[in-house]
This record gives sequence, C-alpha cells and structure tokens, in this order.
Amino acid sequence: MKWARIAFEGKVHAAEALNGKLKLADGRLIDGEEAVWLPPIQPRTVFALGLNYSDHASELSFQAPEEPLVFLKGPNTFIGHKGAVPRPHDVTYMHYECELAAVIGRQARNIKKEEASHYIQGYTIANDYAFRDYLENYYRPNLRVKNRDASTPIGPWLVDAADIPDPMNLQMKTYVNGKLTQEGSTKDMIFSIPYLIEYLSSFMTLNPGDVILTGTPKGTVNTAVGDEVVCEIEGIGQLKNTIIAKERKENSNAALYPGIHG
Amino acid sequence: MKWARIAFEGKVHAAEALNGKLKLADGRLIDGEEAVWLPPIQPRTVFALGLNYSDHASELSFQAPEEPLVFLKGPNTFIGHKGAVPRPHDVTYMHYECELAAVIGRQARNIKKEEASHYIQGYTIANDYAFRDYLENYYRPNLRVKNRDASTPIGPWLVDAADIPDPMNLQMKTYVNGKLTQEGSTKDMIFSIPYLIEYLSSFMTLNPGDVILTGTPKGTVNTAVGDEVVCEIEGIGQLKNTIIAKERKENSNAALYPGIHG
Repeated sequence: MKWARIAFEGKVHAAEALNGKLKLADGRLIDGEEAVWLPPIQPRTVFALGLNYSDHASELSFQAPEEPLVFLKGPNTFIGHKGAVPRPHDVTYMHYECELAAVIGRQARNIKKEEASHYIQGYTIANDYAFRDYLENYYRPNLRVKNRDASTPIGPWLVDAADIPDPMNLQMKTYVNGKLTQEGSTKDMIFSIPYLIEYLSSFMTLNPGDVILTGTPKGTVNTAVGDEVVCEIEGIGQLKNTIIAKERKENSNAALYPGIHG
Repeated sequence: MKWARIAFEGKVHAAEALNGKLKLADGRLIDGEEAVWLPPIQPRTVFALGLNYSDHASELSFQAPEEPLVFLKGPNTFIGHKGAVPRPHDVTYMHYECELAAVIGRQARNIKKEEASHYIQGYTIANDYAFRDYLENYYRPNLRVKNRDASTPIGPWLVDAADIPDPMNLQMKTYVNGKLTQEGSTKDMIFSIPYLIEYLSSFMTLNPGDVILTGTPKGTVNTAVGDEVVCEIEGIGQLKNTIIAKERKENSNAALYPGIHG
C-alpha cells in the first residue's frame, strides 16, 4: 500500500492511494489536486549519504568512499510533493539529487544486513538538492550545501516495504521541464540499504521514523527559477516540485502552513 | 532563573531552582537527589561546532577554521545531568568536551550579530564527548565520532539569558575524578555566539528549541570506565556524569525511561 500525509480543509490527514484517488481515514475519497502534499513521514533523525554511487563520485572528481559518508539533515529541510523549492539569489549551482529514501519502522541496534529488511517500514523518494557553490574538497558537506530551508522535497508516497521486494534494483529517472536528465538504478549504490542499516546500527540506535536518503547516481545538473523537476523511482512514484526565487517561498508557505516543516 | 526538566514519581516535570531545591509547577519543593535529571530542553535541531577554540585546534594539529565548522547531532545523543555515558568496548580514545550551549528562543532568519542576543532563550552546559579513534583529517566529524547514543550529557539547568549578561566571558573548567584537567574561557571562542547566529540564520531558519553547542577549549583528555566527569561553566552550573561500560547502559536506562532520549 501507498500512504500520504496531506493538508486538506485545514487539517492534516493520513491518506491511502486508492484507484487514483486519496482515501482519508474517515472514508472520504479526494482528488490529489485538492490536497496540499506534506512529507509522508515526520522524521526523527534524517541520515543522508554523500557519494554513494561511484559514477556520481567520478562526475564530481571525488574518489569513491571506502566507508559510508553519512551526514545528518535538520527538520527545516523537508517539504512535500508539489512543494516550491526556493533558489537562493546568491547561489550559482543548485543541483537536484534523486534519491531512494528508506524509512525505519522498528528500533534497530546491532542489526546484521541479512536481517535489515525487517526493520524497514517503507520507501519514498527524496530530492536532496545541493548548493554546490559551497561544496568543499573534504567529503562531508557543510550546512550551506545541504541544510537550507525547504531544500529537500520528499514523497509523494510512503510505500510499504512489502510492496518493494527488491529495493536494490529500481530504475531512477529525473526530468527537468519534461526532459530526461538523470537515469540510474539503485543497483549501483556503493553501500546498499541493508549494509547502511548494519553500519549505522553498529554504533547507534535507529528508531522508527528515522530515514536514510541513500545518495544519487550520475546526472545531476543545474536548475533555474521556474524549472519543474520530477524525480521518479520505479514502484514508488513521481516526486514533482518547482523552483522559485527564495523570497516568495518564505512569505507564502510559512504563513499558510506554520509548522509543517517541523 | 534556572530551569530543569526532571523525572519524579513517574512523571516528567519542569522545575525551577529555589534555595538549593527544585520547585515543581504544583509548588512542591524536592531535593535534587530525588530527581532523575533529563536534558533541560527537548531539542529540535542540534548544531555543534568543531575546532571553535584555536588552542584546541592546535592541540589536535589542525589549523583554525576560517568559517564555522558546524555539524548536526541526532536526538539519540542527549542525556541529562548525572546520566551514565557508555564507553564502547572497541574505542581507545573517548575525550570529554565541556561546551557552552546556547538555546534559541525565537524564530531567527537573517539576524545580524548585534541583534542576536534577543533570539537566545538561555544557556546550558553540554559535554560533547568525542570518540577520537574515528576522527579523520577532514574537519567535519563523522557519526562514529559524534553521534553515539547517550554520548552528550546536557544540563543541569537552562539558565535564562537575562541572567548571563556576558556569555562571551565565562570561565570553563572540567574535573575528572575531582582533578582539574581543562580550564578555559568562552572569550577564546573563534566564532562568538552572536556571530554563529548571524552565520546560521543567513542561510537557514533557526527555531525555538534549536541549540548550538559552541565547541571546547584546550585540555580534553581520555577517560575510562568509572570516571566521574564534571563540566563547570561560570554562572551556569556543574554538569556531572559517570562513564560506564556500554552494555550496562543500554539495558538500564532504556528500560526505565523509554523515549526520554528522543
């Protein structure tokens, strides 16, 4: 099954995908166009991977890492499907990054990779925009690259793990204004999702609601104000967003939906 | 005024310091010995600084940074005053780090350093333990160094900003088993708290509950199971904790107080 979190008629609802519609908990069926799509999860800790596809590492002239390059992201970064992503006026390079996101469903500590799938609630799509002007030559990115407000659309759906039998073999595509610009497969990850769960849970506890953004393959390119960017992952869905100038976003969404980013 | 969050008789309470006692919201006065001290804040985003005292950077043979080296920490890391800090069995170097922590009280965006003090709710003390075995030669530390469970005691008090007129001139001391091992002053920070608020709020929004751990001066040394470590900051208080072997901690506190770390 596929799950969304939406704002509708002034309230936040959990919704299930049903015959192209959204089914609310009270049984009502509504059209996706009527909803404001929120991030499908309210994350606890957000882990993100740097350089987890070797073709993308080469593209940036970095060596592929020998150990996962994991960093954390703050709750200010997430917005939902169809959300507007602000492009800061003083940034030259703003690259989308289509990523498979794994959501933890059970507390995990010292879990071996063979058992890791039992700890995953489901999967969604993240577009983990990078502001490359500030990227340094040491590998773990700083907050100006990866922690700006509303810079990480996520959604539309949280898809139950049971519906994705082979998460390590999914086609990924990104379209900018309808043109295919990035194509890859989750089979090219350097560190697989089961391995990442083993790695992280070997020195800390993973908890329900924690989410791992697993990195992006080759093919990230610059974007401009007005671009429509669609990240697609096989079996999960299509995450669409539009890039706007920074000032507009800060005034609009914050007033309409205070707190939805947190 | 000084505020604590405690567990007492099976409930979580806000408490105020009054004549050496803890005053609960219902007026009861209890002794600190009767309370389980929780982190005085439930943090939203936790920022931490690397190498923010030049004498500490030299001590580690790193150059002082030209821009703040900021990284994020997860909610799994915090424990309260008198909490037991687990020492992983496979780690050789576990160094305490006494740090002044500034807690944000108002939403802050594009704030200049001259105005920054209006956005601070108060101050507390953090001991941001580092597991140095895993420290790399690029500056932003990885999660094995800075994101282990219960590795960051914080407290005991959140002290109102109004009671700390000059946060950039406070004596800091750390004692291990009663012996003074670290001595410094917040006046030696490379990037002051007002500067850090200007820097962070220039590219992202700071929100109430966000907390900035501002780095540690020279004098961090290795610790062992059984050590009692006390971090003291002038006008704020004394944060005390004991180091235990990893396994014991995981079984005890987690069972007694599920969820208090989150």
